Amino acid sequence: MLTATYAGDRTIEIREAASEPPKAGEVQIAVAYAGLCGTDLHILHGNMDARVQTPLVFGHEMSGTIAALGDGVTGRQVGDKVTVMPLDWDDTCPACVAGNQHICQNLNFIGIDSPGALQPLWNVPADVLVTVPAEVPLAHAALVEPVAVAVHDVRRSDLAAGDKAVVIGGGPIGTLIAVVARHTGAEVVVIEIDPERRAQASALGFSTVDPAAVDQVAWVEEWTNGAGADVVFEVSGAAAAVRGMTALAKVRGTIVVVAIHAAPREVDLQRVFWRELRLLGARVYQRTDFEAAVALIADGIIPTDLVITGVVPLAETAQAFATLESGRAMKVLVDVQAGQR
Amino acid sequence: MLTATYAGDRTIEIREAASEPPKAGEVQIAVAYAGLCGTDLHILHGNMDARVQTPLVFGHEMSGTIAALGDGVTGRQVGDKVTVMPLDWDDTCPACVAGNQHICQNLNFIGIDSPGALQPLWNVPADVLVTVPAEVPLAHAALVEPVAVAVHDVRRSDLAAGDKAVVIGGGPIGTLIAVVARHTGAEVVVIEIDPERRAQASALGFSTVDPAAVDQVAWVEEWTNGAGADVVFEVSGAAAAVRGMTALAKVRGTIVVVAIHAAPREVDLQRVFWRELRLLGARVYQRTDFEAAVALIADGIIPTDLVITGVVPLAETAQAFATLESGRAMKVLVDVQAGQR
Repeated sequence: MLTATYAGDRTIEIREAASEPPKAGEVQIAVAYAGLCGTDLHILHGNMDARVQTPLVFGHEMSGTIAALGDGVTGRQVGDKVTVMPLDWDDTCPACVAGNQHICQNLNFIGIDSPGALQPLWNVPADVLVTVPAEVPLAHAALVEPVAVAVHDVRRSDLAAGDKAVVIGGGPIGTLIAVVARHTGAEVVVIEIDPERRAQASALGFSTVDPAAVDQVAWVEEWTNGAGADVVFEVSGAAAAVRGMTALAKVRGTIVVVAIHAAPREVDLQRVFWRELRLLGARVYQRTDFEAAVALIADGIIPTDLVITGVVPLAETAQAFATLESGRAMKVLVDVQAGQR
Repeated sequence: MLTATYAGDRTIEIREAASEPPKAGEVQIAVAYAGLCGTDLHILHGNMDARVQTPLVFGHEMSGTIAALGDGVTGRQVGDKVTVMPLDWDDTCPACVAGNQHICQNLNFIGIDSPGALQPLWNVPADVLVTVPAEVPLAHAALVEPVAVAVHDVRRSDLAAGDKAVVIGGGPIGTLIAVVARHTGAEVVVIEIDPERRAQASALGFSTVDPAAVDQVAWVEEWTNGAGADVVFEVSGAAAAVRGMTALAKVRGTIVVVAIHAAPREVDLQRVFWRELRLLGARVYQRTDFEAAVALIADGIIPTDLVITGVVPLAETAQAFATLESGRAMKVLVDVQAGQR
């Protein structure tokens, strides 16, 4: 079978590999689609070389059907549509003991720390499977993982119906957060510097602000009648956005740090103090988020057609990353079965 | 009567002023003691010149007895011991409407935005009074305000019995936070660079860490069996402390930003994200904090004798600030009646 691997040195290689039968407790998935994301780009750029072992079959957003069951696996059938919550925790570290398995201090993130979904037959522990209803197209099901991120971020923020939320950054995750926040009953504005991304957000019915053209603080002040936003989601990863984010939140408002900031960022702690703000880190998801994400997709809440901007065969994974890098795509899916011999 | 005023240009002037009878709804307090704090120093240094109107009779930590009642004031008696919660909110701004009057968007902080306690006869609205039990010495009652700050900070952190808390900065507020945190049932370590302040914290029974001599992250890791601290209080105001604070907290741990950071600070948002940390701003107090602070002092929980490092007459207010500036004092009280003619 053909697999897409990160070989180190900013290189993707399509490699031949032998499939193996699932071990006891494992399930073999015929992977249908794998989505590429910002973390995969970080891997490709070498930013995570200290963590990943090459060659790495990567990919952690996916959908597929069960191809085979290992010994002892119950409650699953060959042919079932599934996705994977790619977290494998140790259940013994302080974080796990405290009930935060999803951010286990020794987490095996499947597809980063161990082989991922860019292979047509993928063996995973049965307990990472998440059921996908038969009526959900497999291409849509490949979005469950990023939607679960958005669900987790919104849930962590305690956003409530009637609240006003600011999403800084209109990329794939920012857009999904905006959609989930709106579905929660909030009014949402997307702050985004790129005109194409603003147009996409507008097409989805969101208010948008160009921070290069508009005083975003004054805009939010007026929008919220002088109060400030209930919740601000920092999804841009930009230093300037971080410097400005605290001025957008109301007294006792919440700022969720979603983006990855590789370098320390300047934060206006005076404003954090003055308004008794709450800054929350939000990382990955818990099972409840995954299940909610499946339901949102099944119910047609997620604008899958707008989010999926391309589908390529496995052999074109490198080109798909180039598209992603250009910032001109939302979500590119790899059709993992296409081109397999 | 003699009053101590900030006259602008880093200058304190002792000025003669006429006392006035309390207006309707006001109470006249014979001020006994006024404590000097870091905010007063900020005023003196000119950092708050854009906010304060000079000459300003400042001082917002105090104790006294009721000298006279204005028309319509009920439930108070001349001679009652009192202190003042120096917050005067507008009750109409979005923060007030949401129940956060203590950080009203148009707050009148009495003693900063309007005349304060460094005068022997001080008129205040009756509803800012807080009752002090007769058996509490007036010098101790002058600590209620800073103790209420500490109570608020600890309450906001959700610190629980059995938790482990790190206090960065062993000045007056850091020390009071440590005391309140310990009374909550937490184990507490104080990280402090100054040897005298470490010695004071040790004398109060706290573990201390010198961050210049010890790897504070390794120390906290070992102390918490690899988990990290439940709560970190940033009370130092130092940029280096802010850069390091995120490494001390456990997964889903809480960092309370207590100190005032006039400039934006570099924060390790990667760590905030990675451990799903919670950063909380905490400012002033609510009435429940003031009442809890009175009880802690009445019950002998606060080491008042160690905290009060000096008492000076009003005429020596400027010298008291110099002592405070040197960092060689915890809390200096001004005896406001001493030396009055």
